[in-house]
Amino acid sequence: MSDETAARVIPNTLTIAGMDPSGGAGILADIKAMSALGAYGCAVVAALTAQNTQAVTEISPVNPQFVRAQIDTLFADVEIHAVKLGMLGQTGIIEVVADRLGHFLPAHLVLDPVMVSKSGDLLLEQKAIGALREQLLPLATLITPNLPEAGVLLEMRSVETVREMRRVAERLRNLMTHGGHRWVLVKGGHLPGNDTIDVLHDGDKMIELPGHRIPTRNTHGTGCTLSAAMTALLPQLQDVPEVTKRAKHYLVQAITQSGALKVGHGHGPVHHFHALWSGKPLQ
Amino acid sequence: MSDETAARVIPNTLTIAGMDPSGGAGILADIKAMSALGAYGCAVVAALTAQNTQAVTEISPVNPQFVRAQIDTLFADVEIHAVKLGMLGQTGIIEVVADRLGHFLPAHLVLDPVMVSKSGDLLLEQKAIGALREQLLPLATLITPNLPEAGVLLEMRSVETVREMRRVAERLRNLMTHGGHRWVLVKGGHLPGNDTIDVLHDGDKMIELPGHRIPTRNTHGTGCTLSAAMTALLPQLQDVPEVTKRAKHYLVQAITQSGALKVGHGHGPVHHFHALWSGKPLQ
Repeated sequence: MSDETAARVIPNTLTIAGMDPSGGAGILADIKAMSALGAYGCAVVAALTAQNTQAVTEISPVNPQFVRAQIDTLFADVEIHAVKLGMLGQTGIIEVVADRLGHFLPAHLVLDPVMVSKSGDLLLEQKAIGALREQLLPLATLITPNLPEAGVLLEMRSVETVREMRRVAERLRNLMTHGGHRWVLVKGGHLPGNDTIDVLHDGDKMIELPGHRIPTRNTHGTGCTLSAAMTALLPQLQDVPEVTKRAKHYLVQAITQSGALKVGHGHGPVHHFHALWSGKPLQ
Repeated sequence: MSDETAARVIPNTLTIAGMDPSGGAGILADIKAMSALGAYGCAVVAALTAQNTQAVTEISPVNPQFVRAQIDTLFADVEIHAVKLGMLGQTGIIEVVADRLGHFLPAHLVLDPVMVSKSGDLLLEQKAIGALREQLLPLATLITPNLPEAGVLLEMRSVETVREMRRVAERLRNLMTHGGHRWVLVKGGHLPGNDTIDVLHDGDKMIELPGHRIPTRNTHGTGCTLSAAMTALLPQLQDVPEVTKRAKHYLVQAITQSGALKVGHGHGPVHHFHALWSGKPLQ
């Protein structure tokens, strides 16, 4: 738990992910969420995209050796307190990221297994799923799949009930390293109906977090934003259930207030700075 | 002038620049400054770097056709109110950027003619300087060179007095398009001594803005931050001298409070969220 009386320590947090020029998802969403929640944001680019709120029109993966150069140069100089992984795109990049993070071993490693954009475009090569499961899942301290991603990782058909989500969480937790405190957050945004319950599991506790669907199209980058928010909060609060609750509250507010932004004509971005711009201090 | 009584309109602002993974300069600094000053931030990547607070270890330019794809996809969907240009790196990228911005003609186009990093590394090919001068200067509504950059653009030896800076501002203004209201901000951070006067000129008015050197090593990304701050404020305030004063005040505070961050062992970043994190509302 954080010591509320001590001077706030500003954690240095890193996202390794793709770039969305429209600023609603990927690295820019991550940096905004980290900045909104009191963390200093760094970013290693794994893929470039040409993208807006309606579609991903082109993808240009970064050479794995250059991903390595970015990571090594950063870690050689800057102490990093938490890392999140988003869109990695290809096997070669996953291998480099797994190799370097296996070496640097950040205290918090959040894996958001990004596979498909909100606009429906494929962001991870089909053949890279094995590398993600076998090389990155074991390193992660927290993974944050939605239901389709959990299904792909476990080679299951669709998951449609909270009972199935609990079973999915157990199976995913079994793919992670058994030592240390490691968590699975299975996100229920794709459940049928208006309740979007999330399930959080550490191999022992099984926590259900309630939620309701918010009537809006502005859901571009919600997954990125939640995992980045958790990455920002983990070094500050340590306690994963508390971090999850706060990050979910932040995301719900950011979605609810997204109408203040006028960005594009498809799935618009969430409002990352809804609280700070209103003069509310950091929580 | 802004109408303080009207509901705040959140401008969509775009940076076209390089990525600095350590988060203190380039696109990440720009997005942080825009976010700290009430603008929504988008970004088109022109170059990747492996970089920290001490050195730029590698540069990987983005294919000019992919720079074009990013710009065209973004503008096809999102209304952009102001654009800033930072590290572009190569002639081919400058040509694409000039072509597309000549087509989309943003109301505010801030050109920060980035040439050398704070660590002393070259960020613009020598042979690209002509393209920058001939293709981008005419499109810009504001340019923000420091003294070495002004010297290179004008093929002059070193500039060392405020009197020379006024002459430099006039000569640079003559290289810009004569129609419309266009400004030159010559930054005096490299003047000898402790006074760092800036000169702002529009072909008519010549305004000197006072400043003092701040005793700190945390100057990584100061140029990026100032031009991004101006890009965020221009659509909100319109008035360039007022925007310049506010952006300079923001930067001075961000430098002064940079000690709160612990990022790297070289030229550390400024504290972009010094005000918002303290609970101060947007100005």
